[in-house]
Amino acid sequence: MTRTDKPKARTARGFRDRLGAEIAAERDMLARISEVYESWGFDPLDTPALEYTDALGKFLPDVDRPNDGVFSLQDDDEQWLSLRYDLTAPLARFVAENYDALPKPFRRYAVGPVWRNEKPGPGRYRQFTQCDADTVGAPAPFADAECIAMLAEAIEAAGVGRQDFIIRINDRNVLTGLLETIGLGGDDSAPQRLKVLRAMDKFTRLGDQGVRQLLGIGRKDESGDFTEGARLEDVDAERVITFMKSSAPTNVQSCSRLMELFEGRSAAGAKGVETLSAITELLKTAGYDESRVIIDLTIIRGLEYYTGPVFEAELLTAPLDEQGRPVRFGAIASGGRYDDLVRRFKGVEVPAVGVSVGVSRLLAALDFVRGRSLEERGPVVVLALEKDRMADYQAMAAELRRAGVRAEVYLGGAGMKAQLKYADKRGAPLAVIQGSDERARGEVTIKDLVLGARLAREIEDNVKWREGQAAQISVPRAQMVDAAKRIIEGDRAW
Amino acid sequence: MTRTDKPKARTARGFRDRLGAEIAAERDMLARISEVYESWGFDPLDTPALEYTDALGKFLPDVDRPNDGVFSLQDDDEQWLSLRYDLTAPLARFVAENYDALPKPFRRYAVGPVWRNEKPGPGRYRQFTQCDADTVGAPAPFADAECIAMLAEAIEAAGVGRQDFIIRINDRNVLTGLLETIGLGGDDSAPQRLKVLRAMDKFTRLGDQGVRQLLGIGRKDESGDFTEGARLEDVDAERVITFMKSSAPTNVQSCSRLMELFEGRSAAGAKGVETLSAITELLKTAGYDESRVIIDLTIIRGLEYYTGPVFEAELLTAPLDEQGRPVRFGAIASGGRYDDLVRRFKGVEVPAVGVSVGVSRLLAALDFVRGRSLEERGPVVVLALEKDRMADYQAMAAELRRAGVRAEVYLGGAGMKAQLKYADKRGAPLAVIQGSDERARGEVTIKDLVLGARLAREIEDNVKWREGQAAQISVPRAQMVDAAKRIIEGDRAW
Repeated sequence: MTRTDKPKARTARGFRDRLGAEIAAERDMLARISEVYESWGFDPLDTPALEYTDALGKFLPDVDRPNDGVFSLQDDDEQWLSLRYDLTAPLARFVAENYDALPKPFRRYAVGPVWRNEKPGPGRYRQFTQCDADTVGAPAPFADAECIAMLAEAIEAAGVGRQDFIIRINDRNVLTGLLETIGLGGDDSAPQRLKVLRAMDKFTRLGDQGVRQLLGIGRKDESGDFTEGARLEDVDAERVITFMKSSAPTNVQSCSRLMELFEGRSAAGAKGVETLSAITELLKTAGYDESRVIIDLTIIRGLEYYTGPVFEAELLTAPLDEQGRPVRFGAIASGGRYDDLVRRFKGVEVPAVGVSVGVSRLLAALDFVRGRSLEERGPVVVLALEKDRMADYQAMAAELRRAGVRAEVYLGGAGMKAQLKYADKRGAPLAVIQGSDERARGEVTIKDLVLGARLAREIEDNVKWREGQAAQISVPRAQMVDAAKRIIEGDRAW
Repeated sequence: MTRTDKPKARTARGFRDRLGAEIAAERDMLARISEVYESWGFDPLDTPALEYTDALGKFLPDVDRPNDGVFSLQDDDEQWLSLRYDLTAPLARFVAENYDALPKPFRRYAVGPVWRNEKPGPGRYRQFTQCDADTVGAPAPFADAECIAMLAEAIEAAGVGRQDFIIRINDRNVLTGLLETIGLGGDDSAPQRLKVLRAMDKFTRLGDQGVRQLLGIGRKDESGDFTEGARLEDVDAERVITFMKSSAPTNVQSCSRLMELFEGRSAAGAKGVETLSAITELLKTAGYDESRVIIDLTIIRGLEYYTGPVFEAELLTAPLDEQGRPVRFGAIASGGRYDDLVRRFKGVEVPAVGVSVGVSRLLAALDFVRGRSLEERGPVVVLALEKDRMADYQAMAAELRRAGVRAEVYLGGAGMKAQLKYADKRGAPLAVIQGSDERARGEVTIKDLVLGARLAREIEDNVKWREGQAAQISVPRAQMVDAAKRIIEGDRAW
C-alpha cells in the first residue's frame, strides 16, 4: 500500500461497534450484578488485557507465533504476550503472584472484555464481555452453595423473574462414578471417557437416539459428516442413557437414586453425591428449592477443567423465532469448581469455585423476558434558527438539563427542515423552536416528535399534519421546561 | 521452556492489576462524567480494542511488524491488527464507515482502555483508560464553546470544586499568526516552525530563559544533553517570548492585544482571534467567565493534530510532595479542534472537536482536592464456628444484606483466631460471632473491628483488650441487624 491510497474504513473481521441503547442496557445490567456480588463480600479486581503467554496458560507451540485460540504478539524484549481469553486464567496468575498477601479465602469479581482468536460467525464475535465471581481457597460444599445462591440473586437483580429461570447442577465426580460403573475408570480409558462425556454433552440437542449412536458406533449428522462413537457395549450405553434420564423431581430423590447406583462401586461417585446432597440441602434451607436449583444429570460442561460441582442457569421459557418455533437459547450463566487452576504456578492444589455470566446471552434473555423495551431515548433538540442567538439556545438547553432533561442545541448550521430531520434521527422526544416570530411573542414552540410520528402514520388526510399544527404547542418562554417535561412524561396538553 | 517447568506468575512489563477501592473510585468518577455527557446529548459508542492497523492510522513501516508506539499482530488472513492507542482514531474510522447513516453533527462519548507500546516508567503504564466526548460535523465556534462548557461541568461533577480548576484556551491559528509575523509562514519554514512550537511548549517548565535558549542556538539541560535550538534572530525570539507573556487578565483584553498584533499582517492569526473571541463571549454569557476559562497563549498541545482552538484543564492548587514542594500535576483534561481526522478515509474535511479526560490524573486530582478518602470498606464477616450450622450463618449474612449491609460468611475452615484475622485483612467493620455459648443464650456477639483496632493502638495497659471485652457487645439474635447497623454508622452502644 502506498501512502497516497486511502485506507478503507472498516471494523476488523469478527469485531463490532456498539451504540447507545445496547451499551446502556449492558451497563445497567452489569451494575446490578456487580452490586449483588459486592453485597456478598466480593471485591472488584481489574487485570490487564495483555498477559505473558506462558502465565496465561497457552504454552508456546513449536511455531513462530502462538495462535491457538488466542491473539498473541511478541514484545520488544522477545517475550510473548497474549490477550486474555477469559477472566479465570488472569485470576489464577494474580492469586499465585500475590498468594501470601491475600486474605484467604480470596473473593473477587471481575467484569471486562476477553478475546478469542477464532473463526467469527453469526452472533459469534472475537471480543466479548465476561462477568465472573470466584472464591479461591475454600473447599466444597459451602462455597459452591454460596456461589449458586448468589448467581440466582444476580440473575434476578438483572431483571429475569424468579419464575423465568432455573439453575441446573451436577458434579464431575458423579460423572466419574458413572464411568467407573461401566468399567471406564482406569488411566488407559481416558480417550474413551472423553468420547462418552462428549456424547452425553449432546443429550439436550440430540436426545436418546442421537446419544445412543454416539455412545455406540457413531453418528452421521444431517450434513453427512460422521462422528466416530465411543464404542460402548449396548448394555453400557443403556446405563449411560438411563443415568442421564434419572434426575428426579426432588433433589433428595436424585441423590438417593445416585447413592444406590454408587454405593460400594465407586468412591468418586459417592463423594459426588455427598457434595450434591450437601449443596442442595444448604440451598433449600436458604430458600432455594427445586423450583430454582435442581440436580440435572445431563449437565456436563468444560471437560478438562472442572473438578467438582458444575452448574448452569437457563431460561425456562424459550423465545420463539420468526416461524414461531422455540429458539435454543443456551446457558445464561455457568460455573463450577476447579481445584487445579493455581497448581500450574504453585505446585499445590488451591480449591476454587466460580461463576461466569454470559453477558450478551443474559442481555438477549432480558430483551426476551421483558419484551423489547430498550428503545433509544434521544435528547431534546433545541433548534438553532438565528446564528447570533446561539447563547440563548444554549441557555434553553442548560435550563432543560438542570431540570433533569437530556438536551442539546443543534450545531450543524443547516436550515429548519434539516434540523427537524436531525432531531428525528437522534430519537429526540421533542424539538424546541424559537425563531424571530416566537421571540417577538416571548414564546417557544414545542414540537412533540413522538406524537408527530404517530400522527404521520395514522392520519390519512394529512392536510392538518402538513400544516404542522397537529403535534406542536406554543408556550411562554418561561414555561418551556414545564411544558417539555409534561410532553416527555406523556401528559400532553392537547 | 519445557512443559514440566512451572511458569512464573507475574504481570507483563508495564501493566498492572487494580483492586477494590481504586476501581470503585474510577467507576464512580466515570459514571458522573458520563452522566454529564449524556445530559448534553452525547451517546455512548463502544469500538473494539483491535482495529486494522491501516484503519487506525499507523501505517505499516518497512519492517515485519509495525511496532512504533502500538501493539500489533498479524491475523491469520495476513492482515495486521493493532490495539487502539486512543479513542479518536477509532472514532474517525467509525464515522467514515457509517458516514451516510449517522445524524450530523454526530455526538458521541466513549470510555475504555487504550494501549501504548512504549517504555513503561514510574506511573507510566502501557494500558490506561480514556474518557472522550467529540462532536463531528460542526464547525467552530459553537461546538468548541459547548465542549469547553461541558468539560467544566464534567470536572465539577467528578468532584473537583469550581474554584479548584481552570480551563486554559488558545488557538492553533493564533500560533500560526505569530509564526507568520516573524517570517515563518512559508512551506519551507515547516521544520523551523516545529522547533519554535516545541520550544514554546516548554514555557511553563523552563520559563523565559530556557525557552529563549531553545528559540536561539539551543539549550543544555541538567543531565548535559544538548537540544538544538530554532535559531531565531534575537528580535524574533523576544517577540515570541513577549507573545507568550501577553495573555491578559480578561479574555476581551487578550483578544484586542492579539488583534492589534495580527491586523493586516496575518489572516490566519486574525481568524484565530475571532474564534477565541466568539468562544469566550459565548462562554461568558453562559456563566463561564475568566475565573473558569481563560485565554492562555502558552498553551500549545499536540503539534500535528489540532487545527483550531485547543484547551486544557488544570488544577489551580498544586499538591505538595513529601518535602513540601509543589508537584507539577499536568493537565487533568484536554482537547481541541481537529478538522482533518476523517480526511484520510473520505478525502474531504469533516470538522470535529473533542475533549479527553485524563482518567488517572483526574483520579489523583480528586484524591488531592478531597483528601484521601478512598479507604477500602470491607464486608461484615460472619464467623463460621460450628461446621454443621453453616446454613444459620448464611441466614445471618442474608439478613444483613437485605438490610443493605455488605456481608459474607467465612468459608476457609480455620479456627476463630484465624477467622478474626481474615476479617481484619478484609477491612471488615465488624465480625458477627455465634458459637455454642451464644447460641445457648440466643445471642450473637458483635465485635467492632474498627474500634478494636483503635483501642489496640491506644490502650497501653492492654489487659482489658486482651480479654477481648473492649470492643464487643452481645445482643439477642433478633437484634443482630440493628446492632450491626448502629456500629457501622458510628453509633456505638458502649
